[in-house]
Amino acid sequence: MRPVIALLSDFGTRDHYAGTMKGVMIGICPDITLVDITHGITPHDVLEGALQLAATYRYFPSGTIFLAVVDPGVGSARRGLAAEAGDYRFVAPDNGLLTAVFHDLPPKRVVELTERRYARPTVSRTFEGRDRFAPAAAWLAKGIQLSALGRAVTSFHQLDLPQPTADETRLTGIVVHVDRFGNLVTNIDRRAFEAFAGTRPVTLTVGGHAVAGVVATYADIRAEEICGLFGSTDHLEFAANGGSAATAMAVRRGAVVEVTRQSQS
Amino acid sequence: MRPVIALLSDFGTRDHYAGTMKGVMIGICPDITLVDITHGITPHDVLEGALQLAATYRYFPSGTIFLAVVDPGVGSARRGLAAEAGDYRFVAPDNGLLTAVFHDLPPKRVVELTERRYARPTVSRTFEGRDRFAPAAAWLAKGIQLSALGRAVTSFHQLDLPQPTADETRLTGIVVHVDRFGNLVTNIDRRAFEAFAGTRPVTLTVGGHAVAGVVATYADIRAEEICGLFGSTDHLEFAANGGSAATAMAVRRGAVVEVTRQSQS
Amino acid sequence: MRPVIALLSDFGTRDHYAGTMKGVMIGICPDITLVDITHGITPHDVLEGALQLAATYRYFPSGTIFLAVVDPGVGSARRGLAAEAGDYRFVAPDNGLLTAVFHDLPPKRVVELTERRYARPTVSRTFEGRDRFAPAAAWLAKGIQLSALGRAVTSFHQLDLPQPTADETRLTGIVVHVDRFGNLVTNIDRRAFEAFAGTRPVTLTVGGHAVAGVVATYADIRAEEICGLFGSTDHLEFAANGGSAATAMAVRRGAVVEVTRQSQS
Repeated sequence: MRPVIALLSDFGTRDHYAGTMKGVMIGICPDITLVDITHGITPHDVLEGALQLAATYRYFPSGTIFLAVVDPGVGSARRGLAAEAGDYRFVAPDNGLLTAVFHDLPPKRVVELTERRYARPTVSRTFEGRDRFAPAAAWLAKGIQLSALGRAVTSFHQLDLPQPTADETRLTGIVVHVDRFGNLVTNIDRRAFEAFAGTRPVTLTVGGHAVAGVVATYADIRAEEICGLFGSTDHLEFAANGGSAATAMAVRRGAVVEVTRQSQS
Repeated sequence: MRPVIALLSDFGTRDHYAGTMKGVMIGICPDITLVDITHGITPHDVLEGALQLAATYRYFPSGTIFLAVVDPGVGSARRGLAAEAGDYRFVAPDNGLLTAVFHDLPPKRVVELTERRYARPTVSRTFEGRDRFAPAAAWLAKGIQLSALGRAVTSFHQLDLPQPTADETRLTGIVVHVDRFGNLVTNIDRRAFEAFAGTRPVTLTVGGHAVAGVVATYADIRAEEICGLFGSTDHLEFAANGGSAATAMAVRRGAVVEVTRQSQS
Repeated sequence: MRPVIALLSDFGTRDHYAGTMKGVMIGICPDITLVDITHGITPHDVLEGALQLAATYRYFPSGTIFLAVVDPGVGSARRGLAAEAGDYRFVAPDNGLLTAVFHDLPPKRVVELTERRYARPTVSRTFEGRDRFAPAAAWLAKGIQLSALGRAVTSFHQLDLPQPTADETRLTGIVVHVDRFGNLVTNIDRRAFEAFAGTRPVTLTVGGHAVAGVVATYADIRAEEICGLFGSTDHLEFAANGGSAATAMAVRRGAVVEVTRQSQS
């Protein structure tokens, strides 16, 4: 079976950067299957990259290697990492980009990319994706062990993932992503929602706007309405029917989401 | 020969959605060659998707499987389909997305995607692309028969494709697509045009703007001029030389196109 | 080893055009590995395409075939070319798109694409990418010799690449590219800079704005500052820390860059 490398970055597709990383990897391991997750992460937005990676990795086959590069600290002293977690391996800068994956899937082993023989001979201080991360991923695909890439590390940078909070009457979260359709994806998953709401009626707001209720899918939303629903990663999101909830309400990432129930009495 | 799956969707490339479908397919059939047609269909625009698919499918090799997902009705009662037409197979929601392909290539067999064993164990009501359509395409690539995917259906949703109309003096069509270059692609093909115009001179307007005439290729258009020509799918289009006809004339999809001839007398 | 074809064009990813070229190539040579460099070159911008191609080709493995289509003269008398240079082959219109590659890597052999058997039976005058260039690249991948594609040519179109100029006190260049991050890439490479500056202090301006100095990497730039640095192709570029230098200074491609030193005295 051909090894699979899945790529996520903030490089966009207008410049040659993602293609250049692919050229480097094919040169090292010609037999790889390359899959783009996205190169459209907002520039330097490590948290967005972390959440997108966590939303997709489990749909890839066992053995997939993820090359994730959202790297505002390129060329600085921040380290490069490779990690094993579940049946997957990950190559990324040590800036928290793997936080959300590791939240689901505690890593079995993490190494720092110190072995120069698995990097390009000259490592640019502005494009380590090309010169350090892509080669490391391709060498893993070619069959080297994770431990060959460098020394084991036990601590690494982790982001504070935004978590919802609850009190007696209110579950509070935020919009963590606005997708292409204008759906507003929140950090409230179904389990947290159901633990809070139980069987009692709740009311929902996002960015201060009341929404019409929780439905099962987009087609259940009436024209001009915004509803909540549980999306493809089982997180609460807000959507319009056939339009953009983000545009309709002028709501952006970071907006506060409130779920309110009648207090038990 | 490795099976080919060609993808068309409105998922964009900023979110992980298209990549996630690819991860699912590689997990089922590791040996596939995946080709993106586009993920840039306007969100929910089934007609645009149908026309783009019809413009490209014939350039793929025999045996190609097309996975097309523009699916505003995701999670609703609308069915999922798989079809054989010509030497190709297609997987898509039953919302008319295959209309323009079927107009060229009447389907030999259409089935509804009812066999749960060829879907993911849990089917999200907001992402059937991942859980139902991508698996069906990958199982076809792996070698199952179309009939294994579900029961045969004899009727399915078809769009009314916009067709040009003609009277004694006027052939009337519309702009059905504005491409990246600002070329205005119409629904008038060369055959309809020639049947109408014959050898007589015609005048052309688009969105009420007169254009300078019909030329053979973009390089024949003079600076500041807009001309008609027959593009790569042999449909009449309007173009500027080195610029955007859409911008120059402020014309958008849906604009009326008129070809006028002197009446025979 | 599977042959590699790397694609660069101005076709964008919203239309089916790039996908259609891939369908054609897989039909001719099913075993190819296709890699997108970018389809986001500004429409008709041959110079931008030439510079992006030159920035990436050397990172691909020996034997890679580059299919480059930025082709405002499609359908006109301008020729189609295939070339061998270094360990690579290139297929492109004869409009200067290979100029910057040839500047690094003088071509060993250039032919005009005259052999009709290696084009599609009908060649559209608006989409030679599909009907002429993609087939030529795929036939090379399948194993034909370059000379089979057509007659050798000894002259071909070359662009005037913008070169920096220097006098006693001033090195003058321009911004040749603004990347996704808003970094302003110039035509001044490290060698030209060092030959001019030596060990003496210099001051830098871009588009008339003074910049804070030359640093080693993005992370060395302080908040609110713009600095120069040598990017991944060893050209001087201007960047902000965590933001867009292009936006911060309202500077665009073509802006004048000046490096000034104290005159020797």
